[in-house]
Amino acid sequence: MTFPRLGVIGAGQLARMMVAPATELGINLRLLAQDSEDSAAQICDYFLGDPSDSAAVLKFARTCDVVTFEHEQVPQSVIKNLESNGIKVYPRSDAFIFSQNKVEMRKKMDELQLPNPQWQEYDGDAVTLSFPLIAKTITGGYDGRGVFVINSQSELEALHKEIGKTLLLEQKLNFTSEIAIMVARSPHGQAATWAPTWTVQEHGICTTTVTPAPELSTSLATAAAEIALKIAQGISLVGVMAVELFQVGEKLIVNELAMRPHNSGHWTIEGSLTSQFEQHIRAVLDLPLGDTSLTSTWAVMGNILGGEKSDMYRPYLHLMARTPALKFHHYRKEVRLGRKIGHVTLLGDDLVELRNEVQHALDYLSGAVDE
Amino acid sequence: MTFPRLGVIGAGQLARMMVAPATELGINLRLLAQDSEDSAAQICDYFLGDPSDSAAVLKFARTCDVVTFEHEQVPQSVIKNLESNGIKVYPRSDAFIFSQNKVEMRKKMDELQLPNPQWQEYDGDAVTLSFPLIAKTITGGYDGRGVFVINSQSELEALHKEIGKTLLLEQKLNFTSEIAIMVARSPHGQAATWAPTWTVQEHGICTTTVTPAPELSTSLATAAAEIALKIAQGISLVGVMAVELFQVGEKLIVNELAMRPHNSGHWTIEGSLTSQFEQHIRAVLDLPLGDTSLTSTWAVMGNILGGEKSDMYRPYLHLMARTPALKFHHYRKEVRLGRKIGHVTLLGDDLVELRNEVQHALDYLSGAVDE
Repeated sequence: MTFPRLGVIGAGQLARMMVAPATELGINLRLLAQDSEDSAAQICDYFLGDPSDSAAVLKFARTCDVVTFEHEQVPQSVIKNLESNGIKVYPRSDAFIFSQNKVEMRKKMDELQLPNPQWQEYDGDAVTLSFPLIAKTITGGYDGRGVFVINSQSELEALHKEIGKTLLLEQKLNFTSEIAIMVARSPHGQAATWAPTWTVQEHGICTTTVTPAPELSTSLATAAAEIALKIAQGISLVGVMAVELFQVGEKLIVNELAMRPHNSGHWTIEGSLTSQFEQHIRAVLDLPLGDTSLTSTWAVMGNILGGEKSDMYRPYLHLMARTPALKFHHYRKEVRLGRKIGHVTLLGDDLVELRNEVQHALDYLSGAVDE
Repeated sequence: MTFPRLGVIGAGQLARMMVAPATELGINLRLLAQDSEDSAAQICDYFLGDPSDSAAVLKFARTCDVVTFEHEQVPQSVIKNLESNGIKVYPRSDAFIFSQNKVEMRKKMDELQLPNPQWQEYDGDAVTLSFPLIAKTITGGYDGRGVFVINSQSELEALHKEIGKTLLLEQKLNFTSEIAIMVARSPHGQAATWAPTWTVQEHGICTTTVTPAPELSTSLATAAAEIALKIAQGISLVGVMAVELFQVGEKLIVNELAMRPHNSGHWTIEGSLTSQFEQHIRAVLDLPLGDTSLTSTWAVMGNILGGEKSDMYRPYLHLMARTPALKFHHYRKEVRLGRKIGHVTLLGDDLVELRNEVQHALDYLSGAVDE
């Protein structure tokens, strides 16, 4: 038994953030990157290949002891091909499907008796939900893409025609807040959650997160953990998963699942004894899971979205001097308008001050303020 | 202005632990390694070269924006050659000398009116100190190597003959404990210390550290910080430096300086908002320094020394299950008896329990206990 090689399909920022804990644990990490300039390929061993190319992925996987994912763009056929060739790949295809296919996910939540919104598939037939409603593409959406607010039958028909595929329709919920909870589970069945996170969204993109979710009652925080653990067990999750929830009054409704480290868990790098990235590595290698305790009262994370500025280094001079406790994470991706190119995290006791400092950093980095 | 490339001369575990904060900050790191299997070369961009080869080091340095060190084995002539060629190299040769030459260091401490033990150079002439005394090689010693307890004139003469070089003699102190304090300073002159650390030594090798040093009074902790800051300013330090001190009753005496991230500061990775590795990067790039606050009441670090076991992966199964909060750092160096091959860190409130758990982990990893 020696330090294994873990293969990660994908080389974006999520893979990039796996590098530090892999290095600490002595795990050899190898990525399947699409481009040598991918965020994580810049700093880690990689193979070049297309994640939808079954032969290329299998060739890559055969050089690794265990394989996992950092995104959902790996076709089921590719994963099943790895499995039928005896590759240890986690999460398994029959779990990963619930992260890839929103209708399969809704069916599974019903089966597990977990709180779904009202939903139906739509392929031009009768609509049983009332308008306004939410229409979603069944696969491939993220960061608000593939999600539409639909006010009428005619809008729905136009969208269906444009998309040209079956849609998932969901009841439009009048929610109080959006919550995410990260959960990890190993092949042995050991599972652990972190404190629930309030994900503040603008135009369908998460801009900041606050952990623990400040407006969530203790009983709802417990309910969130129970939902996450029930899903993890119900789908035989291996790895970490984000469970996105709507808080509607004193109820929680399942919104989406993401079966990998997730933006809503970035705060764990500094804010928890075990980060989601370390936990994902432990889980897929079937090592005992780490302690998920908080390291401070509050953790506030802010996403750096591409804005006016292209120079992301010079702002350090101002921001590090102003807020010496601020932690920076630059993904070294090309700056494009609205693209997530990094994040900042700040820990402490005074939530108002933390949120102000994080917001200032984001505004300064985007060019919205210059002092 | 864009993300700079930082060159590090050396590719051992100290360079390895710089990779995570460099990645987070988006800094491009490039190492001058002696071997492709060096601890950090396994996970980072590197050039191969001998740190004592002036031409090779200059060629390497010209591909970087700023150059720094992870060990003292870089001759002054090599550093001065970089400086005369306009390379930004930190610490500067006229500061680094105090980390390389113990007689120069003692002279500087006297000049700065900082607490030295009685000392003299010895080249076969008269001995003014009383026996027993400590004899040291002036350059090149570490981890207890090059340090000798000498009980008599005849022992001293024998050692001098064997070494064949001038020796540094120091008064043998009856110290209460050994303390280390890390300090960082930038070219702008901004400086910061961390809490002082108790370094527990066995046979001249640091086995564990406890931070903050539990037996140190508040006034001595303040005195330690003052000494460290005075040295940093007095030698125009750029980067981080470990100041090793002897506590003798209610006095502190300067023992040694190490002008780079240091074993006694490893606890800062989890135990401080800013690790010594991130701070070193910030300092040499002349970025504002980070907050050095503690993240918990106590931080206990234990060095993993090579022992009976060669498999360093399998112990995870037991240790992670037993102590879920334990943080591992494996350097991926070949296991040799007594060699530092990794370290563990544990944070918390109960110092007795923390020390017990760390000691158990070290005993289990070395093979001294098997459950």
